[in-house]
Amino acid sequence: MKPLTLGVFEHLNPNGMSGATWRHPDNVATRYLDLDHWTRLARRVEAADLDFLFLADSYGMPIVDGAVPDAAVRSAVHFPSADPFAVVGVCAAATSTLGIVVTSSTVFEEPYANARRYATLDHLTRGRIGWNVVTSASAASAAAMFGRPLTPHDTRYDMAEDYMELSYRLLEGSWEDGAVLADKEAGVYADPARVHDVDHKGPYFSARGVFPVEASPQRVPVLFQAGSSGRGREFAARHAECVFLQGTTVPRVAEAAADIRSRAEAFGRDGDAIRLLVGLTIIVAPTTAEAETRYATFRSFSTDETAAAQFAFNTGIDLLSLDPGAPLPADIDAQQGQSNVDRFRPTDGSPAPTVRAILDELKARGLRGLVLHGTPDVVAQQMQDYAEATGIDGFLLESYLNPGTYDELIDLLLPELRRRGIAPGPHRRQTLRERLGGAGRHLPDSHPAAAHRVGAGR
Amino acid sequence: MKPLTLGVFEHLNPNGMSGATWRHPDNVATRYLDLDHWTRLARRVEAADLDFLFLADSYGMPIVDGAVPDAAVRSAVHFPSADPFAVVGVCAAATSTLGIVVTSSTVFEEPYANARRYATLDHLTRGRIGWNVVTSASAASAAAMFGRPLTPHDTRYDMAEDYMELSYRLLEGSWEDGAVLADKEAGVYADPARVHDVDHKGPYFSARGVFPVEASPQRVPVLFQAGSSGRGREFAARHAECVFLQGTTVPRVAEAAADIRSRAEAFGRDGDAIRLLVGLTIIVAPTTAEAETRYATFRSFSTDETAAAQFAFNTGIDLLSLDPGAPLPADIDAQQGQSNVDRFRPTDGSPAPTVRAILDELKARGLRGLVLHGTPDVVAQQMQDYAEATGIDGFLLESYLNPGTYDELIDLLLPELRRRGIAPGPHRRQTLRERLGGAGRHLPDSHPAAAHRVGAGR
Repeated sequence: MKPLTLGVFEHLNPNGMSGATWRHPDNVATRYLDLDHWTRLARRVEAADLDFLFLADSYGMPIVDGAVPDAAVRSAVHFPSADPFAVVGVCAAATSTLGIVVTSSTVFEEPYANARRYATLDHLTRGRIGWNVVTSASAASAAAMFGRPLTPHDTRYDMAEDYMELSYRLLEGSWEDGAVLADKEAGVYADPARVHDVDHKGPYFSARGVFPVEASPQRVPVLFQAGSSGRGREFAARHAECVFLQGTTVPRVAEAAADIRSRAEAFGRDGDAIRLLVGLTIIVAPTTAEAETRYATFRSFSTDETAAAQFAFNTGIDLLSLDPGAPLPADIDAQQGQSNVDRFRPTDGSPAPTVRAILDELKARGLRGLVLHGTPDVVAQQMQDYAEATGIDGFLLESYLNPGTYDELIDLLLPELRRRGIAPGPHRRQTLRERLGGAGRHLPDSHPAAAHRVGAGR
Repeated sequence: MKPLTLGVFEHLNPNGMSGATWRHPDNVATRYLDLDHWTRLARRVEAADLDFLFLADSYGMPIVDGAVPDAAVRSAVHFPSADPFAVVGVCAAATSTLGIVVTSSTVFEEPYANARRYATLDHLTRGRIGWNVVTSASAASAAAMFGRPLTPHDTRYDMAEDYMELSYRLLEGSWEDGAVLADKEAGVYADPARVHDVDHKGPYFSARGVFPVEASPQRVPVLFQAGSSGRGREFAARHAECVFLQGTTVPRVAEAAADIRSRAEAFGRDGDAIRLLVGLTIIVAPTTAEAETRYATFRSFSTDETAAAQFAFNTGIDLLSLDPGAPLPADIDAQQGQSNVDRFRPTDGSPAPTVRAILDELKARGLRGLVLHGTPDVVAQQMQDYAEATGIDGFLLESYLNPGTYDELIDLLLPELRRRGIAPGPHRRQTLRERLGGAGRHLPDSHPAAAHRVGAGR
């Protein structure tokens, strides 16, 4: 088995992915607005040879009946939260080889401003930037803050297609390689013959002019995506280089993995080159008993209210208003994050869980996907088995305690993964795309971005 | 005379404010996309006790007949350029007390996303952030890139008023002071009774919901503005804490300074508390002859083409297409930056300069305002005289060589200003607002933002 791809999943909020683990006495996640908090974490993740730091984001909030529930405010369930872009420069300055992936929405950010921001960051990091492309699943609350109606799910993907095409034109279609001479003697900074106007007239976006940022090391940042619907998978298969899958059961993940790779092949891309990553929470300790105690502590911070707030964040549905003894009503659908609803509607004939059972599962692990706990060798073996059984390439590690989870990961689990030869290798000076197995710094010719490249024949 | 306020004016482009000084053999400004370039500069500016680093920005480009002129590409006149937001985190991480002012447009950035970004940065820097509010004067080329029609000048100011009001609501009207308890024992992160919904329905913008970022040290970043039209001055007088004035003649600047202070008084604000700053280029050397040689070298990189490209950037007018022997035609008006045109249309009865004379002036100093050259004592005396004669509070220093200008500033000029007791004082741990003379971390009650503050009475 080849080494796993391992990234660290973080967000600018005081809490984790579930419950109210900020309450743990040793959790410093509440320092998420301290600059040093990010400097320290980024350095540690780089020193451990992990592939990248992934900064999640959402303009959404848990909303019930048009307001953030008191329980979410009190328990800090996906609220408050802050802008991850602000810490990218901080993490970039603290490291020299670590990949940094940051989230941006095709619904709420202007494509031109967005491309300009990523291109600048790609320069400053020397090609270590990734873009987690989100179509804003948790968009109802965000749309209200942007003063807009909610864009329907499929329209969001149509917009995203147009958005990506414009982004490719800006990042690949304006500056030829070699356009910048910076020749002080001759007085030529850039060769006007190698700098081109972009003219995009799409169904949703248009732009005309020269892209103002000279070509960055990777041009297009490494593209991450996490679509789970049919349209989401289609989008991922066409554009994404790394896909974040929700880690449900082995058969479901194996099916999703094979489906995305085969859809990518249908687009003429190398399906095996796509890095498929599953969200993973680990609780690792020297003994099984200790790991179980830790896991129990972690769960002890969850209540029905925090579980319901988390579900509301992802779906807009208030579980506490439903009959606890019955399954999710057939006539209730998510305004967003439908996959988080579908997950509790089995299609294999098994009985649907009651709302009470759903609350209990959410209390145990929120909407985290895979949760593995035990000794380092047990967890390492389970990771290996899971990757082999599903055909995925690695994991996005979702912490529940900071620095606790990182201590477990770096001090206990990684040495075991190294012994097995499946830990990520040491960092070298290369772009994030190369680090993740890309053949070069730029997207390959089989990627749709390549169609917009200028001057490649020179 | 009280100490001057001194900030450093920088932008993410390889060139300076005029000509093609990137060609100077000692100029490292071409490294503007290197992270270390900004780390080094920010540290140096902080160590010299200057008040802040100001990161200018524009989505505009020099445009003639719908395209960036070849001369601008070749000579790097305001092109290429990159996103200054990307380096704010870098500069923040490199410093601990320096103010960092970054530009953002009320036309092109979403108010909600913008407020979230500044609030996050204000947290990370512990209250060292300023916002240079621009209404996007050089907006024609930018509008094309955003796929929008150009918004007329006065409409832009109407939009900006609405934008500011929404920003104040988000930053002052959602979180009360003391709302965040982060009480791990009691399990209360924030008190829901002290976190409020914002509901804004303006003529241009609307937003409904809770602002997701907890209250930052300054809440509203220190507000900078540079409006020079009547509407621009009105806007500045109502909102700005620091106003960047174009440094033309002493009488013009004195008039503008008095006018802005008196307009501010009419709004019930303390006019004298507004920091009025003039853009200043210095060429300082141990002897007059050396300073003159340096100044000549600096001008030697200017050509008619670079001068015309600079003017096109600010006005959209191509001087090279006009009769060089005649003044600016009466029927030609700027699509933007009208003040840069008006400057060459005297109102005091003196003859209007010819296009040839305008090109020559632009070659000498671009659209820089005040240019002072000479020995440290001469330049210091001129700065002091200028500040006294105009009633301004300080200067924004526009470099022409990096590190050359900073060497002159820090090694030669600042010691002389210190001897005269008019250099900025040593940095202390305080917010940028306090550093600039504010009575506290937050905007005073006389500022329009204060009307939207919640829970101040508790």
